[in-house]
Amino acid sequence: MQAPFTTISTFRDTLAAAPGPDSDAIKGAQDRNAQLTKPPGALGRLEDLAIWYAGWRGDAQPQIRAPQVIIFAGNHGVCAQGVSAFPSEVTAQMVANFEHGGAAINQLSKAFGARMDVYPLSLDIPTADFTIQPAMSEAEFIDALQTGWNAVDPDADLLVTGEMGIGNTTSAAAVAAGVLGGDPAGWTGRGTGIDDAGLARKTDVVARGLALHATTDPLEALRCLGGRELVAMAGAIAAARYHRIPVVLDGFICCAAAVALHKAVDGALDHAVAGHLSAEDAHQRLLDAMGKQPLLQLGLRLGEGSGAALAIAVLKGAIACHSGMATFAEAGVSDG
Amino acid sequence: MQAPFTTISTFRDTLAAAPGPDSDAIKGAQDRNAQLTKPPGALGRLEDLAIWYAGWRGDAQPQIRAPQVIIFAGNHGVCAQGVSAFPSEVTAQMVANFEHGGAAINQLSKAFGARMDVYPLSLDIPTADFTIQPAMSEAEFIDALQTGWNAVDPDADLLVTGEMGIGNTTSAAAVAAGVLGGDPAGWTGRGTGIDDAGLARKTDVVARGLALHATTDPLEALRCLGGRELVAMAGAIAAARYHRIPVVLDGFICCAAAVALHKAVDGALDHAVAGHLSAEDAHQRLLDAMGKQPLLQLGLRLGEGSGAALAIAVLKGAIACHSGMATFAEAGVSDG
Repeated sequence: MQAPFTTISTFRDTLAAAPGPDSDAIKGAQDRNAQLTKPPGALGRLEDLAIWYAGWRGDAQPQIRAPQVIIFAGNHGVCAQGVSAFPSEVTAQMVANFEHGGAAINQLSKAFGARMDVYPLSLDIPTADFTIQPAMSEAEFIDALQTGWNAVDPDADLLVTGEMGIGNTTSAAAVAAGVLGGDPAGWTGRGTGIDDAGLARKTDVVARGLALHATTDPLEALRCLGGRELVAMAGAIAAARYHRIPVVLDGFICCAAAVALHKAVDGALDHAVAGHLSAEDAHQRLLDAMGKQPLLQLGLRLGEGSGAALAIAVLKGAIACHSGMATFAEAGVSDG
Repeated sequence: MQAPFTTISTFRDTLAAAPGPDSDAIKGAQDRNAQLTKPPGALGRLEDLAIWYAGWRGDAQPQIRAPQVIIFAGNHGVCAQGVSAFPSEVTAQMVANFEHGGAAINQLSKAFGARMDVYPLSLDIPTADFTIQPAMSEAEFIDALQTGWNAVDPDADLLVTGEMGIGNTTSAAAVAAGVLGGDPAGWTGRGTGIDDAGLARKTDVVARGLALHATTDPLEALRCLGGRELVAMAGAIAAARYHRIPVVLDGFICCAAAVALHKAVDGALDHAVAGHLSAEDAHQRLLDAMGKQPLLQLGLRLGEGSGAALAIAVLKGAIACHSGMATFAEAGVSDG
């Protein structure tokens, strides 16, 4: 399906007009949950997840049959400032690794039955260095947003957006700071593992980017400070909202893209859960800003959608219980 | 395989003589982990899990192909004291539900590819009321321990032990207090959901059991205060240690059984990880006593092995990454 927007303004309007969850399905799922063969509330958060998922799918007894993982990759002009422990060539090398099935996200997608698609985004043309000019023109921004939107299979029933892009924790930190405010040092972390000098350099780069691109518009912050893969993730998450496909958010970079949607349009992330808490320190602040509690806390900081892909299993477990369990009446069990 | 013990003393000796992990496999897994296409440490706890699992399986690049979930069910004489929100008949009704595939654990076992076995343990003959006499004779204790041991498939490559038994959070609280000491109120919780008066009654029952069966021997505490399903879980966890099958521990009741092994024999739980943190308050204290960090914290308090079964997915994800990912050399990716 082609993206139903051609400008930032029509994108925002499309997202604002997207439908909410189905209240009848929520009610039906709540009723079903109350009758299942377990003490009330004994499945904890799995119960809330199942009811939430049922609402977005419009089905009180849903299944997860077609999860989709989409990896967007981009390169970053700001790498010229020495912000990463890895060279930019690694982005394309890792795209090849994704395509050949060798990365962590390949194994996790396969383990949990997800289709996985990879979108390298103009890797030979890095975004502009945001300490000098906006990372993307409006045309480039819309192009990445549409690519993300169009990448979503309307028949998917769960979406994970992942990313690869050497330098993109720097972009993500800048976007987070641009959207939510606050001290650049509080948003800037070690990414793939830079040393103290690298972290100081990275923090300075984020600060200079923020000084150059002062804006109160979250989508404008995403354009000026982000990268194509962040913008494409935002486009895909928005498309999922439009198609009522539940989303599992990944770590710091995914959430930096998502928080721009969250601040741009009320309720833009109501269809999303936080898959995990990343080891990148500022991720907790992003989750707090979005009001999301992570499903997993296992110290991952890889990106690629890996934490969210692992959390697909939690969703699958929740839905398997909700939709597969017998009721007290069906099982002939006394309900206390 | 028949249990290689016939007394408490020979059980303890068997457990103490069980082999440890394979140090060559650990070294091989560490070397492999360092070469995989990710920044060092970026898969967080998944990396530690994979290396630990490799050691116990004696294979630096292992697979999880045959997880086994075993549910043991028992009835409790102490139910006569009004400690549960549900009648004892529910134990047998839930066993029928397990056998017909209607319970939460059936859905989770199926979702994560585990074989599931159910062992009802003399449900028509509840253990004795531990406020009056020991819950089990030595013969009954050994019988339950052997049943648990023999239930483990030596060809399984991951084990979850779950339980069903109306009244068994009372037994578990008494066992935990008997093994670890401390105030009965600190170990006693709401189980399936009793009210304040029920909680006060339950705490008093635990206190009376402890007063009657003062012992410093953890296995003796398990015999006098436990239930057949707790003892069988301990037997199964011990058998897994003997066969070098990694174990995922479930919630409060499973861990009360496990902590008796932990205190009986040094290193008895080295082959076990904590699957989740239960909503039953005292579970955290049990995990602390065993030195285990839970993989999941989702507010479950169902038992049945449900939290541990969900955590099978985390182990599967960890092993899928470890054993399936390409190395930097294989993928032609620059390693920073």
